[in-house]
Amino acid sequence: MSEIKLRPLDDRIVVEPLEAEETTPGGIVLPDTAKEKPQRGRVLAVGPGRLLDNGKRTEMSVSVGDEVIFGKYAGTDIEIEGKEIKILRESDVLAKIVK
Amino acid sequence: MSEIKLRPLDDRIVVEPLEAEETTPGGIVLPDTAKEKPQRGRVLAVGPGRLLDNGKRTEMSVSVGDEVIFGKYAGTDIEIEGKEIKILRESDVLAKIVK
Amino acid sequence: MSEIKLRPLDDRIVVEPLEAEETTPGGIVLPDTAKEKPQRGRVLAVGPGRLLDNGKRTEMSVSVGDEVIFGKYAGTDIEIEGKEIKILRESDVLAKIVK
Amino acid sequence: MSEIKLRPLDDRIVVEPLEAEETTPGGIVLPDTAKEKPQRGRVLAVGPGRLLDNGKRTEMSVSVGDEVIFGKYAGTDIEIEGKEIKILRESDVLAKIVK
Amino acid sequence: MSEIKLRPLDDRIVVEPLEAEETTPGGIVLPDTAKEKPQRGRVLAVGPGRLLDNGKRTEMSVSVGDEVIFGKYAGTDIEIEGKEIKILRESDVLAKIVK
Amino acid sequence: MSEIKLRPLDDRIVVEPLEAEETTPGGIVLPDTAKEKPQRGRVLAVGPGRLLDNGKRTEMSVSVGDEVIFGKYAGTDIEIEGKEIKILRESDVLAKIVK
Amino acid sequence: MSEIKLRPLDDRIVVEPLEAEETTPGGIVLPDTAKEKPQRGRVLAVGPGRLLDNGKRTEMSVSVGDEVIFGKYAGTDIEIEGKEIKILRESDVLAKIVK
Repeated sequence: MSEIKLRPLDDRIVVEPLEAEETTPGGIVLPDTAKEKPQRGRVLAVGPGRLLDNGKRTEMSVSVGDEVIFGKYAGTDIEIEGKEIKILRESDVLAKIVK
Repeated sequence: MSEIKLRPLDDRIVVEPLEAEETTPGGIVLPDTAKEKPQRGRVLAVGPGRLLDNGKRTEMSVSVGDEVIFGKYAGTDIEIEGKEIKILRESDVLAKIVK
Repeated sequence: MSEIKLRPLDDRIVVEPLEAEETTPGGIVLPDTAKEKPQRGRVLAVGPGRLLDNGKRTEMSVSVGDEVIFGKYAGTDIEIEGKEIKILRESDVLAKIVK
Repeated sequence: MSEIKLRPLDDRIVVEPLEAEETTPGGIVLPDTAKEKPQRGRVLAVGPGRLLDNGKRTEMSVSVGDEVIFGKYAGTDIEIEGKEIKILRESDVLAKIVK
Repeated sequence: MSEIKLRPLDDRIVVEPLEAEETTPGGIVLPDTAKEKPQRGRVLAVGPGRLLDNGKRTEMSVSVGDEVIFGKYAGTDIEIEGKEIKILRESDVLAKIVK
Repeated sequence: MSEIKLRPLDDRIVVEPLEAEETTPGGIVLPDTAKEKPQRGRVLAVGPGRLLDNGKRTEMSVSVGDEVIFGKYAGTDIEIEGKEIKILRESDVLAKIVK
Repeated sequence: MSEIKLRPLDDRIVVEPLEAEETTPGGIVLPDTAKEKPQRGRVLAVGPGRLLDNGKRTEMSVSVGDEVIFGKYAGTDIEIEGKEIKILRESDVLAKIVK
């Protein structure tokens, strides 16, 4: 998916889920068997930040290309160019994986 | 629907739902079979923004003509000139589709 | 109902429901059969606005005479001079109908 | 009840319920048969206003002697000098009846 | 109970419940039979006020010796010197009885 | 337990529960039979205060050595050096017992 | 686990659970039998702090290497390099264990 077609609003991000069984370079294993276990994904697009009451937006902590971990039931699944992607809020992201 | 007759309040928008089975120019497919899947629509009217406690209104992030993705159960359906349209809040919009 | 006898508090408005089956000048049809569908009404009285923590009140977005759309179950029904009217909060109003 | 013995706290008011079947000078009828219908009452005492975080209190919108409409299940009933009265918050008052 | 041994925190007050069947000087009767009816009590101790975000505390509206009305299920009962007393928040107090 | 090994966070306190049947110097009796009755304890450690949005912390109202009353189900029990202790928030403390 | 690969967001921390049956240098015993009992862990990574509305972040109260106590059901478990670790919010930490 060379060009991303979705521009998320507020503090949402678009994430391409990574195979849960796959072992990351950092050796993190996230088996799909445990239903409550979090998932791993690669960030495809990042929103402008959550709008604050003073009219400014929060600075996003994740960037396009980051590998992130998020709760299995976080966000909304949509199908784009035949691939399942996810739209979630940055607050659903538990941690970034540092390579 | 050449002229829109509804003026939404606060941060609400009026959206004309697009056929879920249709493939967008960007190749996004949103099948209607999965009931929890989000929907796609074209923005017909945009409210003045959510009223803040300081008396100002938030700037809206979507404009008339934008194509947006939103949760299937978001907003309220009304019938106008024989067509079903939706009134939802901007916070129900997950992402804009960039053509 | 030539003179309105109710003065709503805060951001409440008094609304005279319009027949749901009736077609508006703008061609909007709101059939009564669908129980979850919104209703249409004419604004009879408008409160002074919601009181903010700084002691000021929000400016109301609807005026007496406006035709508005609101959720079917919003507000409270009372009978006045033999007619059913509704008291609702401005936040229950989805949109104004522009003639 | 010539002298009121209760001094309500915060934004509470003391209300003497009026007969729901009675027709007001303005012709408002509020039958007791419909359980969800609001009630009418006369204000006997008014609190000093809700305390804000800045240490000030909100100005009350109702005064002693006002005739008000409120939800049937709002507030607390107490018996005073053999009469049932109600203590409710100003936010439970839907509208004042202007004579 | 000549000396009170409890010092309530925040906006809590210590109240000695008064017999609900008893008639007050003001003629208020609060029968114990109706379970939802409020209760009457005498204030034995008053906390320093609720702590605000700016570091100050709210000024309390009730004083030691006041007779107050509160919801039957408000607060926590404790036994002190063989007598049942109540610890409640000032926001649970509906009104003061003026003698 | 001559030296306390736990340092509570925010507005939490560490409390050593006192026998509920025991009569305090002030004559307060808190029988264990009534399950909903509050409990008494001695404060072993006090957190730095709740963090406010302005970056400051609230000043704690209880100190090490204070005897406090709190709801029976408040806080979390842990075992330390063979004794059961409790970690609770200051907001769970109803009152201090003045000796 | 000589190098940590996860960078938690906001006020989250990464914790390596310690054997609940183990007795700490301070003599704290946290048996695994009681399901509601809190757990003990060592902090492996600390987020940048919770983002406040003014754009600043809260200062974290725990540091890498701290031994902390937290509720058994707090946070999310993930598997990293064959070991179970936990990602939780600092507000889930009840206390630090001082050695």
